[in-house]
Amino acid sequence: MASIGIYGRLGRMGQAIAAVIPELGATFAGGADAGENPEGIARKADVLVDFSAAVAVDAHIAAARATATPILIGTTGLSRAQHALIDAAAEEIPILQTGNTSLGVALLSRLVREAAERLGPDWDIEIVEMHHRMKVDAPSGTALMLGEAAAKGMGVEMSEVGVVGRAGLVGARAQGTIGFAALRGGRVVGDHQVIFAGEGERIELGHRADDRAIFARGAVKAAQWLVQQAPGRYSMDAVLGL
Amino acid sequence: MASIGIYGRLGRMGQAIAAVIPELGATFAGGADAGENPEGIARKADVLVDFSAAVAVDAHIAAARATATPILIGTTGLSRAQHALIDAAAEEIPILQTGNTSLGVALLSRLVREAAERLGPDWDIEIVEMHHRMKVDAPSGTALMLGEAAAKGMGVEMSEVGVVGRAGLVGARAQGTIGFAALRGGRVVGDHQVIFAGEGERIELGHRADDRAIFARGAVKAAQWLVQQAPGRYSMDAVLGL
Amino acid sequence: MASIGIYGRLGRMGQAIAAVIPELGATFAGGADAGENPEGIARKADVLVDFSAAVAVDAHIAAARATATPILIGTTGLSRAQHALIDAAAEEIPILQTGNTSLGVALLSRLVREAAERLGPDWDIEIVEMHHRMKVDAPSGTALMLGEAAAKGMGVEMSEVGVVGRAGLVGARAQGTIGFAALRGGRVVGDHQVIFAGEGERIELGHRADDRAIFARGAVKAAQWLVQQAPGRYSMDAVLGL
Amino acid sequence: MASIGIYGRLGRMGQAIAAVIPELGATFAGGADAGENPEGIARKADVLVDFSAAVAVDAHIAAARATATPILIGTTGLSRAQHALIDAAAEEIPILQTGNTSLGVALLSRLVREAAERLGPDWDIEIVEMHHRMKVDAPSGTALMLGEAAAKGMGVEMSEVGVVGRAGLVGARAQGTIGFAALRGGRVVGDHQVIFAGEGERIELGHRADDRAIFARGAVKAAQWLVQQAPGRYSMDAVLGL
Repeated sequence: MASIGIYGRLGRMGQAIAAVIPELGATFAGGADAGENPEGIARKADVLVDFSAAVAVDAHIAAARATATPILIGTTGLSRAQHALIDAAAEEIPILQTGNTSLGVALLSRLVREAAERLGPDWDIEIVEMHHRMKVDAPSGTALMLGEAAAKGMGVEMSEVGVVGRAGLVGARAQGTIGFAALRGGRVVGDHQVIFAGEGERIELGHRADDRAIFARGAVKAAQWLVQQAPGRYSMDAVLGL
Repeated sequence: MASIGIYGRLGRMGQAIAAVIPELGATFAGGADAGENPEGIARKADVLVDFSAAVAVDAHIAAARATATPILIGTTGLSRAQHALIDAAAEEIPILQTGNTSLGVALLSRLVREAAERLGPDWDIEIVEMHHRMKVDAPSGTALMLGEAAAKGMGVEMSEVGVVGRAGLVGARAQGTIGFAALRGGRVVGDHQVIFAGEGERIELGHRADDRAIFARGAVKAAQWLVQQAPGRYSMDAVLGL
Repeated sequence: MASIGIYGRLGRMGQAIAAVIPELGATFAGGADAGENPEGIARKADVLVDFSAAVAVDAHIAAARATATPILIGTTGLSRAQHALIDAAAEEIPILQTGNTSLGVALLSRLVREAAERLGPDWDIEIVEMHHRMKVDAPSGTALMLGEAAAKGMGVEMSEVGVVGRAGLVGARAQGTIGFAALRGGRVVGDHQVIFAGEGERIELGHRADDRAIFARGAVKAAQWLVQQAPGRYSMDAVLGL
Repeated sequence: MASIGIYGRLGRMGQAIAAVIPELGATFAGGADAGENPEGIARKADVLVDFSAAVAVDAHIAAARATATPILIGTTGLSRAQHALIDAAAEEIPILQTGNTSLGVALLSRLVREAAERLGPDWDIEIVEMHHRMKVDAPSGTALMLGEAAAKGMGVEMSEVGVVGRAGLVGARAQGTIGFAALRGGRVVGDHQVIFAGEGERIELGHRADDRAIFARGAVKAAQWLVQQAPGRYSMDAVLGL
């Protein structure tokens, strides 16, 4: 039974993770927040999860390396230098970095890539998402991640084919583009759908997050998986064996 | 059995209407296209349908008045003066003007208005539509019509509350707005969905056009209904008894 | 600010209602559970809500009448005699009885009835719902309620037209029937969709319950409305002004 | 440019295939119907497609073998002996047998299998489909095919886990089952959705057939692919490179 330590214990995700640890057959090793020594908790834990702040991540990675403890980094807004630090750490310890810890989204992303690869240029790709009314950016980071997956499947760069927020006299759809649309309202946790529209048929691949707890559950499951891996840098795909 | 005359017989809608007339228990009185005298066909028909060009509509209305024949105007792009002409004709003959002859869309529009009226300002309204890859404008005219229906139900002007094509750091959703999103791909005839997102629940009211023939069928059914009405100006709502 | 008393305070719904009362601008007058005298709380409250057990409902209605306090009955499994008791109480106090306190479902039900009434027999009606894996009955009570609404709109009895769970060589669809299908899985709170399928077009009217709290919120809102009504028997429709 | 011969030229699929051949860059080699010698057309074609009747299939396979011409068998209702005949022919010529020639459905089937394999037993699988009102069997053959794909991914036999048409007091959902639901109405060509419902999230993988022509287009594309293959027995998966 893996013992999990949490950096950012008092944040929204940290609390959610602590809440689901018992139901998933893990134990809580303790947490550390800003101002606390990260090595103490690293020594007690089998695996660490980090949902803190970008400025604190360097120290957390250092603590994980110093104690040879696997670590999952879910904190967002990392710099290039931090990504290089993760690569360096991956030579010594198992380290998983991701912007979305839902296992369902990880799988969907994989299926989208495969569909885009197989279907070819006659199928137009559109991505629509809905989130709660307080969300300030559009489209969502997850929608962009799905777009990246589609672009990889097509063998192109997302930056060259993405079309966001059609409005007005936009002209006919250009072949090979990926369209994005964002809906906002209520308290919707997050729905995503990728539509492949061919000549007279459509494939629709979607994910609905009914409950915010899925991100905490996915993080714990990924941490339990990570504790058994060899040193290296991993993504959520790997947790599903993809 | 109503005998139906068609202005714009050789256009896409004119041909589609001629094709469905027999299966709907009506008869085809004949058609007239550009350059032909509109009164000849008006004399032979119990009711006229006009899917021609805006420039020709004045002459068609004149022929309908001269022969006291009910007329459905489905031609789009009418001027203000033409709308006034329709109002004037409505004192003498039954006349129905609409931009969408689908009975399903007419009903949906009514339901959207009612929902917007009853649910109140805590429910966010979003409208998403999908059309084929050749469509050049976004959102669709039908999406805007559904937005108008929602705005009427809310007691506001659509021009003041519509938000089209969110992209980037748009900030939290402003209460009382109506969001629009447009998807394009394949050969989709036209799907529309109006989402009312409340605190923890959503109402979704949608329409799927699986076949372009629905617009022709709706036009014929509306014409059959129109032949039995008193003089006046009607919309598709009235055909459904709304 | 209405003061709300709860019968069945310790039940799942009772707890949920107590939790949402403050955020909706009401106050909690106190609760009573099995074995406690129902009149005490009736005296302190402006309005009562009952989510207890069918065997206790008679005493709760008696307490409401004795103190002239409006009461909402959300407890299910009422007998015919209890419905008669509610009718009798309605001559003295405002009383609202319902099996589903979601305002969204109440509105959907109304829209379904109207659509069924307007569209006529050429449109086939199908109702599909999805609930969590622990639900033991199919279709859901709410799906049946939506079916009743459709049947009323069609002017028929639901018992004569309902078709549940097609399986095997069932033959072509009989005109005028209403089909039901039930999906089960995960922790889905409750999704319902009513599909009207015409010749080449579909109208889809749906409701998604993303959060169980909607039933508690709807009950509180209905109680706040009830406190201002004249004596009579009401349903959730009335709360929406339908 | 492949030259395609059609067995069952005058059937619904035969006609649809002949209609789409030119737009897909192939040529029509001619057709043969009941009573005509199948070898004549086999000699003129680069590849054969068979949408005739089960009784005629033996002769068509024999003609394909005699002339060393690749053949796609889309005719349904084949016997065990005929499947053995196809296996034997596959040693001499490329032969593709399938019950559904839509490329979109072939891909969906593959994605469903992969999802079922990766997600594991905590995710409940439900399959819902909608078809036109004239369809006499439920669930559809394609829904059963998708169920087979899911069962394969789970490593079980579909016959042991399928649950069709829930109705009444069915009890809680048994883990590891696959539920099927069938909707019927209007002229819907065929919609399918496979839902994976986990703890607080859902993955929805669907296909919409907007136009019957997709089956003809898929058959032609598969035939064009088949002409370039080595002898062997293939399914639609292979056409997509799966």
